[in-house]
Amino acid sequence: MPTLKDVAEKAGVTITTVSRVLNNRGYIKDATRDKVYRVMKELDYQPNELARSLSKKRTSIIGVIVPSVMHPFFCEVVNYLEVYAAKEGYKVMLCNSNHQKDKEIEYIDMLKSNKVSGIVLCSRTTDIENSLPDNLPVITFERVISNQISSVSCDNYLGGELATRHLLDCGCKNLLHISGIRNILMPADARRDAFVRVCEENEIPCKVYYTEEAQFQSLNYEEYLEQIILDNPDADGVFTSSDVIAAEVIYVCSKNNIRIPQDLKLVGFDDIRLASLTTPKISTIRQPIEQMCACAIDTLLRQADQGFLPSKTVLPVTFIKREST
Amino acid sequence: MPTLKDVAEKAGVTITTVSRVLNNRGYIKDATRDKVYRVMKELDYQPNELARSLSKKRTSIIGVIVPSVMHPFFCEVVNYLEVYAAKEGYKVMLCNSNHQKDKEIEYIDMLKSNKVSGIVLCSRTTDIENSLPDNLPVITFERVISNQISSVSCDNYLGGELATRHLLDCGCKNLLHISGIRNILMPADARRDAFVRVCEENEIPCKVYYTEEAQFQSLNYEEYLEQIILDNPDADGVFTSSDVIAAEVIYVCSKNNIRIPQDLKLVGFDDIRLASLTTPKISTIRQPIEQMCACAIDTLLRQADQGFLPSKTVLPVTFIKREST
Repeated sequence: MPTLKDVAEKAGVTITTVSRVLNNRGYIKDATRDKVYRVMKELDYQPNELARSLSKKRTSIIGVIVPSVMHPFFCEVVNYLEVYAAKEGYKVMLCNSNHQKDKEIEYIDMLKSNKVSGIVLCSRTTDIENSLPDNLPVITFERVISNQISSVSCDNYLGGELATRHLLDCGCKNLLHISGIRNILMPADARRDAFVRVCEENEIPCKVYYTEEAQFQSLNYEEYLEQIILDNPDADGVFTSSDVIAAEVIYVCSKNNIRIPQDLKLVGFDDIRLASLTTPKISTIRQPIEQMCACAIDTLLRQADQGFLPSKTVLPVTFIKREST
Repeated sequence: MPTLKDVAEKAGVTITTVSRVLNNRGYIKDATRDKVYRVMKELDYQPNELARSLSKKRTSIIGVIVPSVMHPFFCEVVNYLEVYAAKEGYKVMLCNSNHQKDKEIEYIDMLKSNKVSGIVLCSRTTDIENSLPDNLPVITFERVISNQISSVSCDNYLGGELATRHLLDCGCKNLLHISGIRNILMPADARRDAFVRVCEENEIPCKVYYTEEAQFQSLNYEEYLEQIILDNPDADGVFTSSDVIAAEVIYVCSKNNIRIPQDLKLVGFDDIRLASLTTPKISTIRQPIEQMCACAIDTLLRQADQGFLPSKTVLPVTFIKREST
């Protein structure tokens, strides 16, 4: 395999010059730069990133921990994180934690050992602070751990408000909310808080149902949703905390001859691609997933700088009207 | 930061012993091993994977190149590849190529420079052979490049046969097939070949429509599908080459008051989670995605051995009856 020295010799320059071209450091004449690149190509020279990383003490890798990339929301998140990391010359190392605390800690240790440049944490919220490395930038995504750790999330409270107000504007008089996972605190819980407040303010009867970790994992809420729908024959509007749940509400209603939107209005959350693949298409709250990912990568890379202060970024959501309301 | 030496001193053993415990090599008494682990924990010792990798000349990272992890099929593939890689102590580096040849080559070069242990290539088929490294294990996933490169795929021909025969068994007399991307050769094309052959054998009129790269990227086939459905009022059965396309056929039919399955029977392909999230749920051909991923990781890691011969593994598909037929 050709070395830096081979490239330098063939290009008739010093090793230092080749190294400066590679690292884009110092002043180099265009003609020299072109020549070095041409020789690297001729010799099929591959810089050893491993050795370079060791001398820099860091790789240009960003660790991404998600509960499961099988979940359509996190699959979109991981996609955009990779796209924006690649734009900055960073690679993404992917970790599925299944919301298990021991797996999360194991992955964090693994990422530390691999000298990643930073971690985007999209998994669990609590108890994990002590396991996070002091000297490694971390940002949480739709999760908030503490004031010491940067986070990016969408305006969940506004989302809950927009969804609920829209159902009221449609004339609904009796609302249900299918909420996030019981016992895992998340920013998404603010969707429920807003739902309850708007209902109370308008003196509209409402009920909140929580979901389980196992349902989140399997993406299967059907039996549970069917029971809820059958238990509440007077409900005329449902706000679900995800589009996945909304898609299953559509199925359960169709099975029980409840027409959407005629008999029951439905609003989801996330605006993942699935929301446009159902029949009827789902009215939903759009999280700006792409912009949230761009912001997460940007914030993470800035954290390597001195004097960085942890930031909490909240991006706005919008209501998207489709056919389920 | 504590070093190997600190651990050895505190545990009262030699550096070699600590290294043997870390690398799980040679005979070590259980009591010694426990002691070393206890001290590592006490000191919060983190092995420097980067330095270890440099001495082994390889990282324990597997590169995975997909067109886009946004696509629900590849999101399931990436999920299982990570799960099976993690079981063997490997990490996954994720790359989205968008089916662009130059991006694929750039990613392959990047993975080479980063000394990954192997590459799972789920992107384009053709012209890329010369860019693949000689000394690095590569396996293609639902793509076949050449006899020199291992591959894992599902039995696409059988899938096409099962889907078409099922439509005939349902009494269909006029069939349509919405096929893969025009001008990109893939094993999935065998689904179309089987469809055409079964139709010809049974003297059933049939038409094949191809799709475009841009539609695959955007997951949006709606206008195109609506035109096809309106152009073929006599069609009573549709076989689509993916569940994503099938979900959009359901939408387009509902919009045009064509009832599924009463007026039109529909069979998809893949059996991704989406197939059970639509109303009606989609009858489809199940690719054994999890087993294909387990096989890809296993084959890739075996390739590091001497005397390895490139293998083509084809795993069986099954027909899953749901509500669209």
